[in-house]
Amino acid sequence: MVRQKIGIGLLGLGNVGQGVVTLLRKNADVIEQRSGKKIEVISALVRNPDKPRTVDNLKLTMDPDEVINDPDVDIVVELLGGLDPAYKLVVKALEVGKHVVTANKTLIAFHGEEILELGEKVQRYVGFEAAVCAGIPLIRSLMEGLVANRITGFTGIVNGTTNFILSRMAEEGLSYEEALALAQERGFAEPDPTADVSGADVAQKLSIMAKIAFSAQVSPDQVPRLGIESIETDDEHAAREFGYTIKMLAHGQRRNGTSLDLRVHPTLVPLDHPLAGVRDENNAVLLHGDAVEDILFYGKGAGALPTASGVLSDVVDIAGSHGFFASIHIRTTATPIEPPPLPHYLRFVIADKPGVIGRITTALGSRGISISQANAHLPRGAKSPGRIRILTHPVERQVLAEVLEEIGTWPDVEKQPLALPLLA
Amino acid sequence: MVRQKIGIGLLGLGNVGQGVVTLLRKNADVIEQRSGKKIEVISALVRNPDKPRTVDNLKLTMDPDEVINDPDVDIVVELLGGLDPAYKLVVKALEVGKHVVTANKTLIAFHGEEILELGEKVQRYVGFEAAVCAGIPLIRSLMEGLVANRITGFTGIVNGTTNFILSRMAEEGLSYEEALALAQERGFAEPDPTADVSGADVAQKLSIMAKIAFSAQVSPDQVPRLGIESIETDDEHAAREFGYTIKMLAHGQRRNGTSLDLRVHPTLVPLDHPLAGVRDENNAVLLHGDAVEDILFYGKGAGALPTASGVLSDVVDIAGSHGFFASIHIRTTATPIEPPPLPHYLRFVIADKPGVIGRITTALGSRGISISQANAHLPRGAKSPGRIRILTHPVERQVLAEVLEEIGTWPDVEKQPLALPLLA
Repeated sequence: MVRQKIGIGLLGLGNVGQGVVTLLRKNADVIEQRSGKKIEVISALVRNPDKPRTVDNLKLTMDPDEVINDPDVDIVVELLGGLDPAYKLVVKALEVGKHVVTANKTLIAFHGEEILELGEKVQRYVGFEAAVCAGIPLIRSLMEGLVANRITGFTGIVNGTTNFILSRMAEEGLSYEEALALAQERGFAEPDPTADVSGADVAQKLSIMAKIAFSAQVSPDQVPRLGIESIETDDEHAAREFGYTIKMLAHGQRRNGTSLDLRVHPTLVPLDHPLAGVRDENNAVLLHGDAVEDILFYGKGAGALPTASGVLSDVVDIAGSHGFFASIHIRTTATPIEPPPLPHYLRFVIADKPGVIGRITTALGSRGISISQANAHLPRGAKSPGRIRILTHPVERQVLAEVLEEIGTWPDVEKQPLALPLLA
Repeated sequence: MVRQKIGIGLLGLGNVGQGVVTLLRKNADVIEQRSGKKIEVISALVRNPDKPRTVDNLKLTMDPDEVINDPDVDIVVELLGGLDPAYKLVVKALEVGKHVVTANKTLIAFHGEEILELGEKVQRYVGFEAAVCAGIPLIRSLMEGLVANRITGFTGIVNGTTNFILSRMAEEGLSYEEALALAQERGFAEPDPTADVSGADVAQKLSIMAKIAFSAQVSPDQVPRLGIESIETDDEHAAREFGYTIKMLAHGQRRNGTSLDLRVHPTLVPLDHPLAGVRDENNAVLLHGDAVEDILFYGKGAGALPTASGVLSDVVDIAGSHGFFASIHIRTTATPIEPPPLPHYLRFVIADKPGVIGRITTALGSRGISISQANAHLPRGAKSPGRIRILTHPVERQVLAEVLEEIGTWPDVEKQPLALPLLA
């Protein structure tokens, strides 16, 4: 690419798209100096050209072909999200010879290998730094900075919405519903928060990280996950008493060389662990490489400008011709394995109290589940329920699931018992 | 570079050099897969070819020209440290058409602009990721991942030796001398620890970061610095009581658009600050970019394999031809400015106690220095000295220096008073 001017065509001009335009214009001097190129946004695909926007001076169109086929557009930046029509537009852009940058985690999680393979075939770059943790240079670090390392595992807070909700529950004592409402009010949660709170978003990001770190193709649908919907404020208090805090984590661990332990769930994290202090909408990923050992990246994992920063890092790489054909070398199609036995936090809400502690602990003991710490809060009177919280020694997931299902059927146990693994 | 085989010539085969060979061989499969090239070490410059080493199967020579002029060597990796002969060998390597990778912070701090300019002129790459924080991809992140950001400032723990010493003083109550001896025993401090404990090493790393983050040429010699030699165990205890811990920090801050506030000194860091939890030989750098806001990188900042990881990230970049001419665009030759008024921790060791608290606080007050917190430990009897520790509100450095110099001359004040800024 010898042109001194690089044109960008945006597919989507929402918050992130407007952030890209704003940031590119605001920092035009440093970006031009560092890339040696003049980079500008030529046109943008929008649903409604008449909607008021914070940016002007670009062609708006409702026809994606006008962006993709524009000879002044060198790089198509896809910011639509979801699979349809993003997938077919990205494929089309590559096929007509454009480079592609995308912030679309769903697209890369489900079709990353294929899209990167196409890019390599047509000799066009595909950048997706912003698809995981926005402006934190995590993808680039895995692919370049840590290239000489065998990554043995990672643990990360990669979803700002759930981390915000759990932080507000922990710090202000808000209920789950109150914290979710606050997150929505602040713009950290969607009106329909399901993708975030269920862990589906985390599973997509985990799948992308597993592709790069472990060369393994894992569908997000195959990743076992538990959402944060059943966490109560009292669980966070109990966790603190035991010396932990609850964080929604993506876990990826290589076991026995090739098997992959991949999971997404709220996890009790020791209070002195580096991830314990990551608050509110921030993200952090702790990676372990065989040469660098533990390495942590921390920053904002969402938002218009942080995401625009990630998008533009790919754009500048491509514009400066020191981009790279970021092929993901898939060596294995992995099915996540059963995790090893893990210590767990268990919470039981009980109505009728006499004898129930004894019966619960006996039931656990009869399956060989041993208890490391326990406390109970059993107010007088039958009206307010009591709670028993237990930390177990490592236990097989299946064994635990069976006994908890049984205990959940007891008439004096009010809710299905909650079980969260501890970070080992 | 279309060759499928890339040869490396090492200048130096100490711990890091042996780490490069070991890591390259151990992870040959992933490195080849990711770079598309077979990378191997051809030869190494050594002082004594007969010294026992952990690696074999490479040509050892005492003549640098044999490495630099070897037609099988594509990339010269300089691991000698210091300026002589590293500087002239790196220049020669570039001039004969080799790419260069160096882990030499002193070389880049003092001659970085010039060497990168030469590299650009002769169209050869110069990589120096490992010169700051070893395997943490900090340089690459500043140059690529955060390329669209205007960096407004950074604060970092970039020296493992001083962080180890301060951590052991804080956590085990060791004296400075004991902690230094332990660091030397563990290989974290040199037999002559001056470069580390005086802050000279930190100033070199700060200078490199300032070049890239601020496009400013700053000689390490111009950076005001204070070492850790005068920190006592009691200072760390006193800091904790005030809610802080003492960390050796590199500070770089853009002020009023263009002036640079650059300094190196032990700093009181609030206990809930992300840098407060960085222990022992670990490093961490907190950057602020106008798009990403706060972003933190954490990991091992020294050691054979972490440094080899940083070196090989540059090697693979170059081998894969997606390296880049990492020119540093120097726009200003900056002289660090006076920092803004900062709150300070003050410590006075006093012999004769009656009235001295009053005289010290009066002296401070007469210069307009106001106190936010204070405590005193004044054991009975004239034999054991007492200590007064004070946290001030923000104060001009010069005003503070003058009054402390005066107080230091008082016959009942035993040592020159210590003053450390607080992290605002």
